[in-house]
This record gives sequence, structure tokens and C-alpha cells, in this order.
Amino acid sequence: MSLELIQDLSVPNTTKILLLSSDGLGGFPHPETGRSELETARIPHLDALARRASCGLVRHVGPGITPGSGPGHLGLFGYEPLRYPVGRGVLEALGIDFELAPGDVAARGNFCTVDSAGRVTDRRAGRISTERCVELVDRLRRIQLGGAELHVEPVKEHRFVLVLRGRQLSGRLSETDPQVTGHAPLPVHALAPEAEATARLVYEFTTRAAGLLADAAPANMILLRGFDQRPTLPRFPDVFRLRAAAIAAYPMYRGLARLVGMDVLKTGLTFADEVATLTAHWDAYDFFFLHYKDTDKAGEDGDFGGKVAALERLDAAIPALEALGPDVLVLTGDHASPAVLRGHSWHPVPALLASPYAAADAVDRFSERACATGSLGTLPAHHLMPLAMANALRLTKYGA
Amino acid sequence: MSLELIQDLSVPNTTKILLLSSDGLGGFPHPETGRSELETARIPHLDALARRASCGLVRHVGPGITPGSGPGHLGLFGYEPLRYPVGRGVLEALGIDFELAPGDVAARGNFCTVDSAGRVTDRRAGRISTERCVELVDRLRRIQLGGAELHVEPVKEHRFVLVLRGRQLSGRLSETDPQVTGHAPLPVHALAPEAEATARLVYEFTTRAAGLLADAAPANMILLRGFDQRPTLPRFPDVFRLRAAAIAAYPMYRGLARLVGMDVLKTGLTFADEVATLTAHWDAYDFFFLHYKDTDKAGEDGDFGGKVAALERLDAAIPALEALGPDVLVLTGDHASPAVLRGHSWHPVPALLASPYAAADAVDRFSERACATGSLGTLPAHHLMPLAMANALRLTKYGA
Repeated sequence: MSLELIQDLSVPNTTKILLLSSDGLGGFPHPETGRSELETARIPHLDALARRASCGLVRHVGPGITPGSGPGHLGLFGYEPLRYPVGRGVLEALGIDFELAPGDVAARGNFCTVDSAGRVTDRRAGRISTERCVELVDRLRRIQLGGAELHVEPVKEHRFVLVLRGRQLSGRLSETDPQVTGHAPLPVHALAPEAEATARLVYEFTTRAAGLLADAAPANMILLRGFDQRPTLPRFPDVFRLRAAAIAAYPMYRGLARLVGMDVLKTGLTFADEVATLTAHWDAYDFFFLHYKDTDKAGEDGDFGGKVAALERLDAAIPALEALGPDVLVLTGDHASPAVLRGHSWHPVPALLASPYAAADAVDRFSERACATGSLGTLPAHHLMPLAMANALRLTKYGA
Repeated sequence: MSLELIQDLSVPNTTKILLLSSDGLGGFPHPETGRSELETARIPHLDALARRASCGLVRHVGPGITPGSGPGHLGLFGYEPLRYPVGRGVLEALGIDFELAPGDVAARGNFCTVDSAGRVTDRRAGRISTERCVELVDRLRRIQLGGAELHVEPVKEHRFVLVLRGRQLSGRLSETDPQVTGHAPLPVHALAPEAEATARLVYEFTTRAAGLLADAAPANMILLRGFDQRPTLPRFPDVFRLRAAAIAAYPMYRGLARLVGMDVLKTGLTFADEVATLTAHWDAYDFFFLHYKDTDKAGEDGDFGGKVAALERLDAAIPALEALGPDVLVLTGDHASPAVLRGHSWHPVPALLASPYAAADAVDRFSERACATGSLGTLPAHHLMPLAMANALRLTKYGA
């Protein structure tokens, strides 16, 4: 089902949709108790929501595929992730709030270590400190090339972003990261004729970087990968005919929302700040994407108890959200982050959709196993937005 | 989701995956007891596996579609059957362990009976004995054609395989079987320009066969159908980056495994032989396809009690398989073969996936009805391999 179809069927209404993404929501049973994070947490408000909602499990990319945050959220926004790929360099730029202009080519950069023969001995330069990264990025900013404006931005530890801005650039470039040690960085080459000029610019940048970093071991060379341009995605406010706002404390999620054309609201660093922002702007928008980060952080740290606590904090915020009176409330996550796996996983993620027109099913608590028996079944994440739209009475009949 | 994506995301690990295909596993309630073969059998080990695994039902081709063994197994191997079709002639050749070379054209042959006017009166020549088939195939082997090497191989009763080996052959040929009696065999014709030469060869073969068989009534003519060349499938060991071995007593299943590039291990005629082969080669491979035939045989014979007994023998072998310590164990079948239907059927087939990262659901026994409530839902068979790969921690994140 295409976004063109959704756009054709979308009609105005005064209803409001709240999409709450609890990052890395899904978990996995603790080996000692046999209960997952959601099954361990005391979450009376989420359980009550599950009782009156339609529940299910969402899968973002495909069976067995672990989603990154980018494809995970695009799925929640209604975009089939495999149909709308976003390059690694673009995601990295979004993650530091760098505003990519159309046509910019972004790449993910690593500082690395090379030996006297030029062979990579450490692809991450011993994970240098972020402070050192900032210093070395300053060196790289001295590079000037004819034909493109350069932006080099530090990220964290050994990571940085390279952005080329200019005319007729192309991201169809091979990566320079050999992926293994013992080999020299690969020379960049064009993967399509239109990328020849960009390949020459990147080659020159890499060569000059090698010179500027010669005395900076262990960070005496760079590797570049994930060259890409900002994709042209159908605009969310146009597809769904919704005035749409994003509220997220972390830059990556703001960047993803901006990528699909949502308004990104200024907010604070805590979820309480985010909820205050939501409340303040409630009247001005039809759709809100609200992001809760803590569940993912604890999951990635392998902190089972921390994730349980994060879920309980989320639960405590639910009454304030319900008090706003959203016509449709969708609550799910962009991927699972089970503490036992210390990272993202492929497991489908619990989801609930509450609205006056979503019938309650037999699910009486909000957990992975309970939602697996729900009336939504296991569904692709990008099916949630059309369902939310229907429940908001914002989609007209097809073929009649 | 494409096999290219899976290949891109596949990463090495030391984990092992065991795929146990119990042929024709799925059954149907006996009219007197209301219990299916699985529900009747005493299968404590399978039930225990179901309790600790994620369970579901798999569908191999599509709703309502009864799979043959070829598409049924291709689905289990991760290949969407409708996307990777395999011709009838090719399957027939695989079924007798005939090693098709790339470019060979294979067809399924029937001896048939024609009357004095050349009209087919029995499409199966009264199901002549296999011994008679062998004698008549020997006659057909006298035929020599300029332009292609011919192989004629007896199968069973009235069935044989014809293989043409040569340069620039094509399988785009119409069949000669009129499918009904009272009509003469159809003349073969090319369905594409590149098949003209092959059509002439087949026409000549058919004409000469008619002469050689003139005195052999009831097997005095042949019918040919299912012309095809061996398809070029993505190689299983490359797609999944697994050292993959197949263990099957029956040639058809060895042939299917060879078609996707698995190593086919020499084994004996019984399942005990197969398990011994598995044990002997356990260290040398990452993935094993293990085939159990007895469930299908009893189902096809309409032998309800025999199928129950076959399931109980399978159950008895489970501890030996678990003792090997597979990281991921997938147990399902290539199609259902309910005794009440005396053959393959369209019913989805119980499946379980056991691994440290597959959460137990509420399913507490291994049966059609119990698995229908499992957390895997009803899923396409070709989704099992990506799930097995994820559970073996052999797939990396998408889009991050």
C-alpha cells in the first residue's frame, strides 16, 4: 500500500493523534525470573491502556532484521523502511543536528591508526577521547577544496561526519574503510559516472587529511563510509494532511522528523520537559511524535533494573498524556533493546492503539507476550499510521 | 525482503543452526476422535521443546496452496517459492539423484497407451511395473540425436526422466501431454524463439520413441511435460554465510539441497543413520538440514496410526539432537500430509524455533491447534531462516 494512496484518501478532521515512541521498548525475559522488563515493571497505567486498546506486535524492517533507529522510526512514521533507505552518513549527520541541505553528500568518518606501511592497525584509533576528536577535526577543517564547501563535525570518540556541499555532487561512492585491519584504506571510487567529480574531491580530502594527521598517532588516518545524500521523502504533513510536530530531546530523532517534514519543537533534556512542550503546543498541531529515550539507554547498557525503572517512569507520565485527550494514542517503540542482549534486537515490539473506534481485545497487560495475542497481530510498523489515521476518522473510503 | 539484504547483513559467528524437516508433518483431526496425528501421539520431547520455544504455523507458498516437496523445502531454506520456481522436469531429475548440469533441459516423461488412430487411451500405460519401465527406457536409450546428448532414466512404474544436454538448449517448450484421453499427444512447440532448435530435437525424440515402442502396448507411446533447466538460485552458503550440510535418506531432498549449494553428506537409509551422520559431522558445519521422511509416507498412505507412530519415533530421537547443543533448533515440515486426505495439503504446518533468544510463549504442546496461538503467528516458511539467523546472532543491524 503506497503513501500516494494514503494521501489520496486523507481528509481533514479536527482529531488529534499522539504517537509515543518509547525507544528500544521491547525486551526479553530475564534468565532468572523468566519475566521481561515490561513483565517485571509495575506499569498500571500502561496495563490499563492495553485493556482498552487494540494491541499487537510491530516489526519494522522484516523478520529477523534488527532495525537501527533510522529505519525503526521511519516505519513508525508510515514509511516502509526498505522502500525509503537512508544512508549511514545522513543518519550520522542527523544524529548531531547538522542540517543537511538538499544535494549535500554526508559520510560517516572514523579516525584510525595506520602503520608505517600505511596499513590499518586499528579501525577506531584506540577510541580516542571526544576532546581529542574535536582537536583533530579542527585540523581537518583547514582543508579547502575547489568545487565544494566542506563541513567536518566531531561526533563522539573516534567518529566524525564529513559533509560536502556544492553543485552536482553525488553520493554514489565506494567506502574507504577496508573493514579489516592489515589492509591500507581503500581508494574511494565512483559507483556511477555522475559521481566522478565527487570521488576526486573525496580522494583529495583523504590525501590532505593523511598529511595533517601524520604526527597524530594513534589517530593518524581517516576512514570514510556511508556516503549518501539526504533522500527525498514524501512529506509527512502532505501525505497525511496533518499539521505534525516532533518533540524529542535527542538530535537523531529530531533529525529524522525533520527529514519527513515535521515541525521540530524546541524542548528540554528530560521527558518532563518534552511533556511540557507537548502540552504547550497541543492546540497548534494535529499530530505529535513524542520520543522517550530512557528505555533504550538502559537496554543498551544491559541494565535490566534500569530499564524496568525507565518503564515505570514512562508509566507515571501516561495520565498527563491522557489528560490532553488525544483522539488516537499509539504507543510502541522503534525496535527492541533487551537488556540481556545489550543492544537493539530483531524481536517485534509491543504496540497499542487506543481510540474510541479501536476495540479492546483480550490483552489485559502491556508486554511482549500479552501483545502477541492481540487483535492487531504482528504487523509491519508502517501499517500503524494508516490505522491511526483511520481511527482519527481522517481516511475516506476507497473505491466508492 | 530480499536474499540480497540478508546476505548484506549476514555476519560470521560460531553458532550452529539445526533445521529439522519432518516431511508432511501437519495433520488433521481424525473424524472419530477429533484429534490430529500430533494431538494423538505421545510426544513428550516435542511438547517440552514447544514449551521453551517460540511457536507458530508456517505456510510455504500461499493461502490455500498445497506445496510439492520442492517449493516446500525451498521455503524452509529461505527462498520464496513463487520467486524461485523450479520446473517439474528438474524436480523429477533431482528425485532420482540425477546430477543436472547447468544448461541441461529436463522433462518428466510418462509411458502411455495410444490406440490405432494415435489417440491416448491411458495416460499412465496401465501403470506398468517399474521393471518394464526399465526395459523400455533401455529401448529409448538407443535414440541418438545430432546436437544434444540424451539421458533417459527410469523412475517408478510409468514414469521416466528425459534430459537433453548440449549447447544453447532451452526449456521454453510446450508439453506433449494432452491431459485427457481421446486426443493424440500434442506436438511439442517452442514457447520462445531461442527454443526452436530444442523443440526440433524433442520432436525427433518423440517420433523415434513412437517407432521403438510400437509393439510395446500398453506402453506404446510417451508424453513429456515440465521441460525446464536447472534454475540459478543464490547459493545458500553465500547468502547466509553458513557452512551448510544436508542429511537426507531420499534423493529428492538431497537434490534440492544440492540445488541451493549445500554439501550433501553421505548417509544411510534410516533416520538413525541420518542422526549418526549428523553427529559425526557436527563440528564441520554451521548449518544442518536434517530430513525425516516417515511422517509423510504414512500420511500419503492414509495411515493415521502409522503417522502417529512415525511422530513418536521422531520424538524419541529429539534428546539425541538436543544433546548436540544446537544454538538454534527449527523444527517444522515442508507441507502437511493429513492421513484423512491421503496426500499433501494446504494446511499450514506447526513450527517451533528454540534458542536462548526465542522467548517461550504460552504454547505448551506441539500440535496444529496449539501452534496456531504461538508468538510466531502464521508466517511464510521463508521467514524462518532470517529468524534462525537472528537467533544465531548472525545478522547485523539494518540502517545504523
